[in-house]
Amino acid sequence: MAILSPLATEVFIPVAAVIGIVFAVVQWVLVSRVKLSPTAAAASGGGKNGYGDYLIEEEEGLNDHNVVVKCAEIQNAISEGATSFLFTEYQYVGIFMSIFAVVIFLFLGSVEGFSTKSQPCTYSKDKYCKPALFTALFSTVSFLLGAITSLVSGFLGMKIATYANARTTLEARKGVGKAFITAFRSGAVMGFLLASSGLVVLYITINVFKLYYGDDWEGLFESITGYGLGGSSMALFGRVGGGIYTKAADVGADLVGKVERNIPEDDPRNPAVIADNVGDNVGDIAGMGSDLFGSYAESSCAALVVASISSFGIDHDFTGMCYPLLVSSVGIIVCLITTLFATDFFEVKAVKEIEPALKKQLIISTALMTVGIAVISWLALPAKFTIYNFGTQKDVSNWGLFFCVAIGLWAGLIIGFVTEYYTSNAYSPVQDVADSCRTGAATNVIFGLALGYKSVIIPIFAIAVSIYVSFSIAAMYGIAVAALGMLSTIATGLAIDAYGPISDNAGGIAEMAGMSHRIRERTDALDAAGNTTAAIGKGFAIGSAALVSLALFGAFVSRAGVTVVDVLSPKVFIGLIVGAMLPYWFSAMTMKSVGSAALKMVEEVRRQFNTIPGLMEGTAKPDYATCVKISTDASIKEMIPPGALVMLTPLIVGTLFGVETLSGVLAGALVSGVQIAISASNTGGAWDNAKKYIEAGASEHARTLGPKGSDCHKAAVIGDTIGDPLKDTSGPSLNILIKLMAVESLVFAPFFATQGGILFKYL
Amino acid sequence: MAILSPLATEVFIPVAAVIGIVFAVVQWVLVSRVKLSPTAAAASGGGKNGYGDYLIEEEEGLNDHNVVVKCAEIQNAISEGATSFLFTEYQYVGIFMSIFAVVIFLFLGSVEGFSTKSQPCTYSKDKYCKPALFTALFSTVSFLLGAITSLVSGFLGMKIATYANARTTLEARKGVGKAFITAFRSGAVMGFLLASSGLVVLYITINVFKLYYGDDWEGLFESITGYGLGGSSMALFGRVGGGIYTKAADVGADLVGKVERNIPEDDPRNPAVIADNVGDNVGDIAGMGSDLFGSYAESSCAALVVASISSFGIDHDFTGMCYPLLVSSVGIIVCLITTLFATDFFEVKAVKEIEPALKKQLIISTALMTVGIAVISWLALPAKFTIYNFGTQKDVSNWGLFFCVAIGLWAGLIIGFVTEYYTSNAYSPVQDVADSCRTGAATNVIFGLALGYKSVIIPIFAIAVSIYVSFSIAAMYGIAVAALGMLSTIATGLAIDAYGPISDNAGGIAEMAGMSHRIRERTDALDAAGNTTAAIGKGFAIGSAALVSLALFGAFVSRAGVTVVDVLSPKVFIGLIVGAMLPYWFSAMTMKSVGSAALKMVEEVRRQFNTIPGLMEGTAKPDYATCVKISTDASIKEMIPPGALVMLTPLIVGTLFGVETLSGVLAGALVSGVQIAISASNTGGAWDNAKKYIEAGASEHARTLGPKGSDCHKAAVIGDTIGDPLKDTSGPSLNILIKLMAVESLVFAPFFATQGGILFKYL
Repeated sequence: MAILSPLATEVFIPVAAVIGIVFAVVQWVLVSRVKLSPTAAAASGGGKNGYGDYLIEEEEGLNDHNVVVKCAEIQNAISEGATSFLFTEYQYVGIFMSIFAVVIFLFLGSVEGFSTKSQPCTYSKDKYCKPALFTALFSTVSFLLGAITSLVSGFLGMKIATYANARTTLEARKGVGKAFITAFRSGAVMGFLLASSGLVVLYITINVFKLYYGDDWEGLFESITGYGLGGSSMALFGRVGGGIYTKAADVGADLVGKVERNIPEDDPRNPAVIADNVGDNVGDIAGMGSDLFGSYAESSCAALVVASISSFGIDHDFTGMCYPLLVSSVGIIVCLITTLFATDFFEVKAVKEIEPALKKQLIISTALMTVGIAVISWLALPAKFTIYNFGTQKDVSNWGLFFCVAIGLWAGLIIGFVTEYYTSNAYSPVQDVADSCRTGAATNVIFGLALGYKSVIIPIFAIAVSIYVSFSIAAMYGIAVAALGMLSTIATGLAIDAYGPISDNAGGIAEMAGMSHRIRERTDALDAAGNTTAAIGKGFAIGSAALVSLALFGAFVSRAGVTVVDVLSPKVFIGLIVGAMLPYWFSAMTMKSVGSAALKMVEEVRRQFNTIPGLMEGTAKPDYATCVKISTDASIKEMIPPGALVMLTPLIVGTLFGVETLSGVLAGALVSGVQIAISASNTGGAWDNAKKYIEAGASEHARTLGPKGSDCHKAAVIGDTIGDPLKDTSGPSLNILIKLMAVESLVFAPFFATQGGILFKYL
Repeated sequence: MAILSPLATEVFIPVAAVIGIVFAVVQWVLVSRVKLSPTAAAASGGGKNGYGDYLIEEEEGLNDHNVVVKCAEIQNAISEGATSFLFTEYQYVGIFMSIFAVVIFLFLGSVEGFSTKSQPCTYSKDKYCKPALFTALFSTVSFLLGAITSLVSGFLGMKIATYANARTTLEARKGVGKAFITAFRSGAVMGFLLASSGLVVLYITINVFKLYYGDDWEGLFESITGYGLGGSSMALFGRVGGGIYTKAADVGADLVGKVERNIPEDDPRNPAVIADNVGDNVGDIAGMGSDLFGSYAESSCAALVVASISSFGIDHDFTGMCYPLLVSSVGIIVCLITTLFATDFFEVKAVKEIEPALKKQLIISTALMTVGIAVISWLALPAKFTIYNFGTQKDVSNWGLFFCVAIGLWAGLIIGFVTEYYTSNAYSPVQDVADSCRTGAATNVIFGLALGYKSVIIPIFAIAVSIYVSFSIAAMYGIAVAALGMLSTIATGLAIDAYGPISDNAGGIAEMAGMSHRIRERTDALDAAGNTTAAIGKGFAIGSAALVSLALFGAFVSRAGVTVVDVLSPKVFIGLIVGAMLPYWFSAMTMKSVGSAALKMVEEVRRQFNTIPGLMEGTAKPDYATCVKISTDASIKEMIPPGALVMLTPLIVGTLFGVETLSGVLAGALVSGVQIAISASNTGGAWDNAKKYIEAGASEHARTLGPKGSDCHKAAVIGDTIGDPLKDTSGPSLNILIKLMAVESLVFAPFFATQGGILFKYL
């Protein structure tokens, strides 16, 4: 048995989670020291503004008092807009979740005809397991818990981001380092809260369910899979709704403001500017938070459900069973130390230090985590154990499993670096795309698409190698823990990720508050680094989604009693080809939605410019609220069809065509979706940074393409606008498509296995 | 046994092929009656120009003599450019083919260690089959025959197209109906020549090889698979090289001419204009011809190799064995009758009758062919027979097999109509894309991409249903004959398809010869219909490629002795995900190639406009030859890396990772590639026709977006330019990627099965 006793496990996991939460609170307190009320700012610290040097406004003789008041106002507007959108979204999603909860209960309850009698277990026929009716009930409960945890994670992330954006702007007056730390700390608040709350809720749920299930771990962890489904369903609507919201506003604002009226980004005269900034918070922050939470919950569930029918579950080895949670617990501690490297051990002083500082975060967390995994694998795992492998049991050693987690972790780092290479304007791919703007928007788009396609190659090889190695070592359990490995540094990943939109918002607020262009330059530098880190974050999200959904797929086929998914069977093959089509169908819906919503936004913004006298001159205020409403209405309405496609496909295919065809659909959607997701998000990221490269004019080459407003720059803006829905709506939503269909199939597996495939049965 | 005796089969096939060739010659004679020399034109017919009405020039008082001379000159330049490009291309491809022929011989010869002794047969161990060394030799020979037939098909197609383009222009002076018939007849020449020569060469090869193989039909038809590989290898280079050539010239010409200099398309002042017109002939004509010939050869080979190990082969039922060839023979007769509906039974008199006339061709040929298949299935097949199905034999009836062929045929029609719906500007999808140009190029691109993604849905369902039904009836043989069914009307399909680029060229010649704008309007109307039919043709090509490659995949696994391709095996899964990535890698290469070549072209065209005095004024002639050279050099150089990717992948994967991983790669590339291919070609077609919709201004809505030169139109031109490489280079080349990898795996199957997978063996 393992070195770590069950009691120690029982203590270690919640303690790690609590440490994470405390750390998040400490970071939040540090951020909140930046005061948003002018009097408080003046009063605090003793010296003026609590800082030795002059602020930029003081140097330039601007009225500090006014600027702070304006920042607070704008922040308020953004925060209110985001809160009101999320509340509206949650109302609709709430109705959906309630209905779906009933569906889960009815479908799973019907497996044994709503009987309340215990039945022989699936994998050990000599024992009795809890009735399907109760597993249906507990699955429903864990589904709702997952959805609520995801909702709270997204909401808190948004709250923190809107709390931090104006504070980052104000700190930018003191220097780029101060602004960086504020944005980064705020990202860390979100990262640690999410990682810790995900862990602690899952842990408590397991312990509470155990009171009922007792020794029936098979049933216990089957019902826990609902947690992953809940988290991912919420994430779907968060990503799609938020993605449509943010990009409708962004595209609409850019098309009229930048292209037609030639006013800068985030100019307060643009009526869509508040909606645009709200969008960053509901799409990139709340959506991304829900997405990564979903991946995390799902990979834990996939690992747990496979473990429950392996020797851990059969021998009731609690410590071994909790290995996935222990890895996450270690991850929180590792990320905590890593964060200190950015906030305390070193200090960012110049613009050029920002990107290396963020990159260092990735490297440090990965290196430390490798040690952490080695330690926990040695402590928590027996030297030898067996893992269920489609009908047989496979022998695995603790060092083998360490290797599975570690390969996932390092594959994540590789994907991160490749993404950086293809999306940062420090390297030749983005510079080539920028250069192609010389001949107009068409070549820019052709080169950008080609770049995205090319950027798929290495990540796919990295994923393929991880899959092969981890599967060879520990079957589907190996893949699940590899996914967990990739996600084990989620707190740091999210901190880096959230930092981007916060900086983006900070820049917007600086522009809207009419602050000095020197502040805007600082926030732009933060934002450019944020663009690349956002792309890296998306790379992680997609890479982990691929591994997670494969693990879920494995758990699904195990639970459905399938032992072979043969491509040569027509049932499987048609599933495969139709599954590979689904990401296209889904992308068609989401992109068209962004396009249509953006058209409406454009019309409204044009209308305001044409009918509100004095708007262009800055003497009249635009009607921000109508634009916020257009984005809200469009995203609520438009998130339903793609959401329905994803949620209904497994149900329809499983019920009508059965588990074989469904297996094909899942495999097809996975192998096709991961490619489009990576290429879409990298193409979009590259176009965005190609534009920023031309705007910044930081090299001889860049200056020949610029300045702002040149033909090259206009072509680059078109590319950037096309990239918006690709990188922030359809691309990242595809992660959820592949994961959600897999986890939904897993939850409904007993139903499909017993009642599914009615079309083939009766034909 | 079947009603049709072996002797009747021996007679019917070559007779049908000869009828097809004779019909093609007749059509050619009819086209050649249009005289390209002014004196001959005046002398012919008796009345002036052999036609009752006045020509447009005569009405407008232009000098008829000059116009005809100019046309002949331009035609000559285009024809010379195309011929010289193809010769250069064939030289490089010739070297490659020779090397690859040696590779085939060595790899296949090594299977039994170059032994000259007969060995026990794979499927009937009690019999002796010819030694692998001789099968290697015959495979090499049939590979070279396939390559040469493909080469000749493409070359003749190009020759006919360049012969017909100027004649179509001249006929357009008499009326749109006359021009239509000339263009359509020329297309028919190509269609019938290609279908007939493909059939007859294959037939002769089988009969000659039979002299050696005698009763060893297994070996005979294994060696015949080389024919498909040769055809497809040639097609790969034809499509990729031709595609890069045509789009580099097209994009380059448009970017400077239309966008920067504001001169019309095909304006003789544009230095890239000849290269652009040459490109249509080498890309859309020669490339498309080779592609469809490849599909046809491959589906025949796939069907034959499966049949050879089924009851047809085991019982030596020659008529049953030749069923695929008989279907193609009937197809030639049916297409012949169908063609008469366009050329003799009805007459196109007005512009609006063109598209319906072409559509009628599809419907008539499909309806007649259904009857034809029924008759030949009844005559040529025994009432009951068995088909090899991965280790077992499956009972099939003649009516079942009829159903397989028919479902492929009708699935093709559905794909054709869906393609038409999404790419013709008569329907709302393209009109919506045109409408989105109001807000600029960015929304145009977003809507266009969404349209392409959406257009995938129904074709995939059509393909999935065909696969399921035909597989359920007759295993992989069913899929092979379904593919043959889709391709059985290839002569008509190619006629319709070739008609497009011929009309496009005709318009170009009218513009360059300075003919009346009324002629240009007529050729533009022909061309707009041609755009849609080209998209339909691509739809057919892709749909049939999907079925063909699945059939080849089935033949490959049969020949390699694989009975299960389990997605749950990591070896297969990594193949699947990497295979799904290959179309992206390939597209990245080809799109980047077009982009880079276009940039070079733009620089050259700009240079000429800037340095040749009097060029813009029309007093000096541009240097066409340099532009032709840029396209030629770029396409020759750039076709090598994507070509190598496709040709080497099966060899590397099969040798290093073995047949299981290779099966995964083939399935992954198939299910992912078909989606990108369909969406890319429909997106491109939609953008092209959205632009034409705005230019034509044929409706109230269209007029609000136009006219030429408006902001909307400029946005539409950007979309059109982006679509060029998508629809004419990367999209259609993907067909070949998926087919070629499959047929190559099939040819090398014995080698991979015995010697492959060395990496897994030694790890």
